Amino acid sequence: MLTRIDLNADAGESLGLWTLGHDTALMEHVTSVNVACGYHASDPVTMRDAVRTAAATDTAIGAHPGLPDLVGFGRRRMALRPDEAAAIVVYQVGALQATAAVEGAQVVHVKPHGALYGMALTDDAITTAITEAVLRLDPDLLLFWLAGPTADLARSLGAKVAREGFADLEYDDEAHIIVEPRPLAKDPAAVAQQAVDLLEGHVTSTSGKHLDVEVDTICLHGDRPNSPDICGAIVARFDELGVERVPAVQLV
Amino acid sequence: MLTRIDLNADAGESLGLWTLGHDTALMEHVTSVNVACGYHASDPVTMRDAVRTAAATDTAIGAHPGLPDLVGFGRRRMALRPDEAAAIVVYQVGALQATAAVEGAQVVHVKPHGALYGMALTDDAITTAITEAVLRLDPDLLLFWLAGPTADLARSLGAKVAREGFADLEYDDEAHIIVEPRPLAKDPAAVAQQAVDLLEGHVTSTSGKHLDVEVDTICLHGDRPNSPDICGAIVARFDELGVERVPAVQLV
Amino acid sequence: MLTRIDLNADAGESLGLWTLGHDTALMEHVTSVNVACGYHASDPVTMRDAVRTAAATDTAIGAHPGLPDLVGFGRRRMALRPDEAAAIVVYQVGALQATAAVEGAQVVHVKPHGALYGMALTDDAITTAITEAVLRLDPDLLLFWLAGPTADLARSLGAKVAREGFADLEYDDEAHIIVEPRPLAKDPAAVAQQAVDLLEGHVTSTSGKHLDVEVDTICLHGDRPNSPDICGAIVARFDELGVERVPAVQLV
Amino acid sequence: MLTRIDLNADAGESLGLWTLGHDTALMEHVTSVNVACGYHASDPVTMRDAVRTAAATDTAIGAHPGLPDLVGFGRRRMALRPDEAAAIVVYQVGALQATAAVEGAQVVHVKPHGALYGMALTDDAITTAITEAVLRLDPDLLLFWLAGPTADLARSLGAKVAREGFADLEYDDEAHIIVEPRPLAKDPAAVAQQAVDLLEGHVTSTSGKHLDVEVDTICLHGDRPNSPDICGAIVARFDELGVERVPAVQLV
Repeated sequence: MLTRIDLNADAGESLGLWTLGHDTALMEHVTSVNVACGYHASDPVTMRDAVRTAAATDTAIGAHPGLPDLVGFGRRRMALRPDEAAAIVVYQVGALQATAAVEGAQVVHVKPHGALYGMALTDDAITTAITEAVLRLDPDLLLFWLAGPTADLARSLGAKVAREGFADLEYDDEAHIIVEPRPLAKDPAAVAQQAVDLLEGHVTSTSGKHLDVEVDTICLHGDRPNSPDICGAIVARFDELGVERVPAVQLV
Repeated sequence: MLTRIDLNADAGESLGLWTLGHDTALMEHVTSVNVACGYHASDPVTMRDAVRTAAATDTAIGAHPGLPDLVGFGRRRMALRPDEAAAIVVYQVGALQATAAVEGAQVVHVKPHGALYGMALTDDAITTAITEAVLRLDPDLLLFWLAGPTADLARSLGAKVAREGFADLEYDDEAHIIVEPRPLAKDPAAVAQQAVDLLEGHVTSTSGKHLDVEVDTICLHGDRPNSPDICGAIVARFDELGVERVPAVQLV
Repeated sequence: MLTRIDLNADAGESLGLWTLGHDTALMEHVTSVNVACGYHASDPVTMRDAVRTAAATDTAIGAHPGLPDLVGFGRRRMALRPDEAAAIVVYQVGALQATAAVEGAQVVHVKPHGALYGMALTDDAITTAITEAVLRLDPDLLLFWLAGPTADLARSLGAKVAREGFADLEYDDEAHIIVEPRPLAKDPAAVAQQAVDLLEGHVTSTSGKHLDVEVDTICLHGDRPNSPDICGAIVARFDELGVERVPAVQLV
Repeated sequence: MLTRIDLNADAGESLGLWTLGHDTALMEHVTSVNVACGYHASDPVTMRDAVRTAAATDTAIGAHPGLPDLVGFGRRRMALRPDEAAAIVVYQVGALQATAAVEGAQVVHVKPHGALYGMALTDDAITTAITEAVLRLDPDLLLFWLAGPTADLARSLGAKVAREGFADLEYDDEAHIIVEPRPLAKDPAAVAQQAVDLLEGHVTSTSGKHLDVEVDTICLHGDRPNSPDICGAIVARFDELGVERVPAVQLV
């Protein structure tokens, strides 16, 4: 079983007056945050505030670029060409890098959001275009990709990759995550158990299939109604087991 | 009379299928381009292509951040707080910096666009917030501000500033430029004469008043129907007079 | 003192996943709702759902067109030409009219939102352009304008106008409302008292000046944290006083 | 061979300063125009101007609702639920209906744009949701759907449908049109011949297959560089053959 793991959560997913997520509560516990960059959520002031909270809590800052679709929260697939997908990732990562630099902070990882992440799982050309663009932008940037073929492809291209597992999403038999259109509350104990399973190198699909997965970082979603409780349950289990939480950038 | 001057023009002001401007023609002659960054015009693919053209023609690349208003092309004033204005500038500059980095190029200056530039002329808090944010982002970034009190204020804050004059816009008696909602064709010879006046340290207001101005860079707009002709006329006058065109970043 | 009054509140101010307001709770009590139309808030599905709630609670449906500024929630003034302001109002009203028609409901009034409402207070050309456009669209549509010169101007142009007062905003000495950038909780009893003052034909400015105002409809904001409590307090006072709540469209 | 046919073209596809299409030239000849409604192109002022040109040339006005994607011009598929697709169509049709009403004109048909039209071809749930929503909005509105199963399905739901053929697009062997990401110039004579083929009830696929199609309206695209020439060539052939051009709304 792994004794050191990164816990990551999304942050900065508000938009102007509309608030979403539990940034401050989560950043007490997670070790990496993925900050939305204005395409599926967030705006420059929200991004600045998320970066400040992350810096104040010593949480590693990542960019969370999404599809240009506020109404759909970046969760509706769009037929982008690979070079378009790469260009919107670069644009958003740069926007957050500058926002962080002004606050004396730094972006250390990139995790595509929602349907863009999902499109990469089933289209190697998207994965390749995004990975190569991030490599050209800065080879020290760590990419978060789902543990399995997508993460392996990105590594084979020369990128630093954190293999990701999900504590609060279900897996299908192909080890693909099943994204809900609108996150609901989940049982904290069950989510914490899945996190422990991931530390042990496996996860169970919805049909009951045992899947082997090796992960460097575990994601939990900040926009569930009870996200802080879920986070607390995971942290309590990890503490019991003596598992240390460490930013992925220090593990890979 | 100045013997060395920067000529700057806007670029990358297309949007998806909609094309605007004469990027390729102008970049043969101007020494700095201000690339739109997706708020008043442009999109990640258009920005990438503008950066490629600039890199291929050895034109100095600047960011041209604007107000979030595609339909108004960033020319309608919006009541932003100073910190909001600074945050949208940082966001857009960063987006272009990353886009340039992926292409092996670099952003060397920042010139706010349209109404945002105009708001700074009449609101020192806006000028200060933008200038200080750019300083925190990277003190080597050169800021373009209108020659006069705005440029002087930015310099007093410690920023590298290129004082800007406009060859193809009229000036009022306060030495403020008069921005047209929709740029029309202009007489190339008259515009070229105003450019020469600026080299000599003066310009004439619409009411006939003589205004002293010291400039480091002269702007011409790329979205007039006859922008390439205007550019040609200026270049011809400068060549006659032995005036050398040099990127502002090398002059300031 | 008035014995019949319309109570209005904004609705449909969510956006995709982001929720805002207390639509269902408020529509139990208010007699008119102003549904956001996609420019400052809302989206087609949110509008549809707001219309359904209004229809189910027999609440009169109005359009609440705003400036094209989601991040600023339509509360940042923009320098629009009067014909631009009219065109965006018409666009948004039509969008809601069709949304309502599909649900078997009908839009009966129009109330410009936020900064657009504020711009009309200080610019008669904006008020005139919007009013005349709504008249050409459908002379039976009732316009909500602030009680005072703006409402009077619109009436003089031939429009059906409901003169509006605000229970939960402060007034300056010119009888203009003072809009907060971000609505906070307010004392329900104080707000209810201001509503009663309005029924009596007056309101007190922040400097203590007595202002005479005649109103047909009273607005309370649905996006305060304690909006349902405020609404409850107003309704309780009105019930005590025997004041009947009636949609403005039946009063004017 | 048909002796009466509707010729339709898109219009109002500019955006703010960015112009696209040949509205005025085309409206001299086509009998129906499909006006963009602000989601993939256009804005309220552009829509108003397109409606005025249509009214001045006695061209039948239709709504051309698209996906919410300006940068992609509505040509990138998005994974919308059927009820989302219906809601965005209703929103946009209503926006144009109100715009037309203010100008004393009327919207008589609805033609989904680009990828939304394409999504309906391969997803009956999308076609059904849009068709039923338009029926509830106004059963007199004519829907343009591609001649074949999509048009037939909409008719079976009780809608008034104009079966559409395309003069300037290629067909695959399933009689689906092949949409180009960026329209190029085409040979006017060849396009005119395909229009005549459609009048005769057939069209040839790219692989040479003979396809039987019955059409009520023929589309040509206004955003090709030589669209006016193409239109002229079609009109000349139709005039030679004595084919009368009539708005679809009078034919169905």
